[in-house]
Amino acid sequence: MDIQQSIRALGQQARKASRVLAAASTHAKNAMLIATANEIRRQQDALLRANAKDLASAKQAGLEPAMLDRLTLNEKGIESMAAGLEQIAALPDPIGEITELRRRPSGIQVGKMRVPLGVIGIIYEARPNVTADAAALCLKSGNAAILRGGSEAIESNRAIAACIQTGLSAAALPAASVQVVDTTDRAAVGALITMPDYVDVIVPRGGKGLIARIATEARVPVIKHLDGNCHVYIDDDADSVKIVPIVENAKTQRYGTCNTAETLLLAQKIAATALPGIAAMFAAKGVEMRCCEESLPLLRQAAIPGAKLVPANEEDWREEYLAPIIAIKIVAGLNEAIAHINAWSSGHTEAIITENYTHAMRFLREVDSSSVMVNASTRFADGFEYGLGAEIGISTDKIHARGPVGLEGLTSQKWVVFGHGEIRS
Amino acid sequence: MDIQQSIRALGQQARKASRVLAAASTHAKNAMLIATANEIRRQQDALLRANAKDLASAKQAGLEPAMLDRLTLNEKGIESMAAGLEQIAALPDPIGEITELRRRPSGIQVGKMRVPLGVIGIIYEARPNVTADAAALCLKSGNAAILRGGSEAIESNRAIAACIQTGLSAAALPAASVQVVDTTDRAAVGALITMPDYVDVIVPRGGKGLIARIATEARVPVIKHLDGNCHVYIDDDADSVKIVPIVENAKTQRYGTCNTAETLLLAQKIAATALPGIAAMFAAKGVEMRCCEESLPLLRQAAIPGAKLVPANEEDWREEYLAPIIAIKIVAGLNEAIAHINAWSSGHTEAIITENYTHAMRFLREVDSSSVMVNASTRFADGFEYGLGAEIGISTDKIHARGPVGLEGLTSQKWVVFGHGEIRS
Repeated sequence: MDIQQSIRALGQQARKASRVLAAASTHAKNAMLIATANEIRRQQDALLRANAKDLASAKQAGLEPAMLDRLTLNEKGIESMAAGLEQIAALPDPIGEITELRRRPSGIQVGKMRVPLGVIGIIYEARPNVTADAAALCLKSGNAAILRGGSEAIESNRAIAACIQTGLSAAALPAASVQVVDTTDRAAVGALITMPDYVDVIVPRGGKGLIARIATEARVPVIKHLDGNCHVYIDDDADSVKIVPIVENAKTQRYGTCNTAETLLLAQKIAATALPGIAAMFAAKGVEMRCCEESLPLLRQAAIPGAKLVPANEEDWREEYLAPIIAIKIVAGLNEAIAHINAWSSGHTEAIITENYTHAMRFLREVDSSSVMVNASTRFADGFEYGLGAEIGISTDKIHARGPVGLEGLTSQKWVVFGHGEIRS
Repeated sequence: MDIQQSIRALGQQARKASRVLAAASTHAKNAMLIATANEIRRQQDALLRANAKDLASAKQAGLEPAMLDRLTLNEKGIESMAAGLEQIAALPDPIGEITELRRRPSGIQVGKMRVPLGVIGIIYEARPNVTADAAALCLKSGNAAILRGGSEAIESNRAIAACIQTGLSAAALPAASVQVVDTTDRAAVGALITMPDYVDVIVPRGGKGLIARIATEARVPVIKHLDGNCHVYIDDDADSVKIVPIVENAKTQRYGTCNTAETLLLAQKIAATALPGIAAMFAAKGVEMRCCEESLPLLRQAAIPGAKLVPANEEDWREEYLAPIIAIKIVAGLNEAIAHINAWSSGHTEAIITENYTHAMRFLREVDSSSVMVNASTRFADGFEYGLGAEIGISTDKIHARGPVGLEGLTSQKWVVFGHGEIRS
């Protein structure tokens, strides 16, 4: 059987399982999650052994340290994987909820019922914890899952898949509810993203290159997250006490996350008073500042010890540094800030610091990004911080789900009609 | 300037206009709709003249009568176009609504704000009324629109576009808020559906061939409607008084609509008592019955005068007849009915006739279609009947919008965060 056929076979089985899952009780789904968590704890040694094999091959293949780090499973990681499953079990079940039920003049009652999407394909890098996490989110939301993790994690993923099978069997749910693609052949991805009959949506989790390729080649809808070029705009009416803490947190709490700020915009009126304090904080943390033509002389004049000042060029407005670098630009005021963000942002997360009510409200409404904030750090753009309980990813798409995607993002709503024999006239 | 460039230019202008529309007041949007309605009434003669030119060319080109019918504008059609705009003006504005605003442990308040999608491309056949209707729905939902109607309607569309421009100008909204592609070159469609930078979603309205082609070639999300292979299932516990009226309405009220029933399923226990009455009604209306192996002898034995009985083959379970033909199949009961529908339906609309509570609830939950009904005619699957006030189409997709798509389907939700200086710890 070639790879195309074997992935189609997975798809057919997943579609069949999805019918059962759509009707599965909350009790059965939670029982599966808890049984899987227990099995993961019980199989700790087997998981560590499988992971050791992956790590040995990866080291031999010369994998980068950051990738080795993400591939590594230790006792703490295994416990947190099990605890993550229990947390998802504790979340409310989104499926079956009927909302907006209204009686129409014809006599019928019309409402919307929340239902699973069906079959979800998850494509991710060599991070074994994603296998358990993604399986749990799909299952709790009533979806069958086909998981395709990075080939460097294949032994770990097989071991986790075995635990998931034990969980499914304990809850009497179909084995094909969660299927892990058990091949390192890259053609499997191409097959998975071009089966609209069997896969309803693809969620890629990984680097930009992987996601861009999947978005281009997919023949099924993709819930995708591209860049996180996030902005903080300091308005002329900003509260001086809030400025440095928010900018510091947004840029420096973690450099490598997608909700980290990459560009700082300042209203002209406040720039001269606000910038030196910000720059001193950045200098102390070793953050390089790529400055616009107006901010550069201003900061040079301030002569802050250790400040790394570099002239910005247009590329800096687009760049997601994921590093101790920030672009700085002085704008005339709110209008130019909004225009700059809507022109250059990747549509992820933007924040305004202001005490001006009208400016705050205009920023919220007019900035076209998935998360828009007033007087808070961009770092809050996260499923857990938003109260979703879990997160499969952050969408920078505009249709279906925007921003952090939790269980609800893996569902849809169909129309339900309660009639009493009505016919249309 | 070649066609690719000129469509890109439309896209750039639409993107710019979309920023203004996203922030436009409800008052301005409604003023535009009412001014356009007035102008359409005022320009009645010009519209009739333009339409006469289109009709003359179409007749010369040998267009089919059904297409000529859809292309024709008369006084009544013009008045109903104007009234349609006023109805959309009267609908509540979906934009800016904030829901689910909750305070999180960190102190931030997080909610969702309803926002436009941005730029919507509508591709449709030679139906001039769609030009006004689609423009109005996009504008009311805060979206810029690029409209590409069938080339046979170009003169009519130009005349309607002029009225729309008068409306935009009266409300001081950007001229590029609604742009009608003013060329009959087919390459325009190809360009429009491959500009993700400038177009956020494509809504094709038309025949299956057009929609399938767009879905395959598009590089932007498509809200699409494919087949309407709708089912009515008569359960063993059906109320005999409801059966014939619902089946009659679902199949025969209009043969050519997507929510017309195409397959009738009957539980074995009720088939012998229910089928003769149904078949007599179909015979009286000249509806051909394509019968399964079990129903065919039963109906032959009933010897209903004028009944057109034909043996069904597998193709009949898939077919959207859009004609006085219905497929009939006897199933063991609810389980087989649900399995048959989920296997063969196009996911549009299905109805069960039953008095059994558990069967009704299972049908609603387990049938994977965009509208699922109990004891009502499938013909109710419609934006107006559901209370949406208007409809841009019916989606058979599973992500974003399912079923009838009104103003809300042309919007999305972004996250808004109200902070007080919070940073993430």
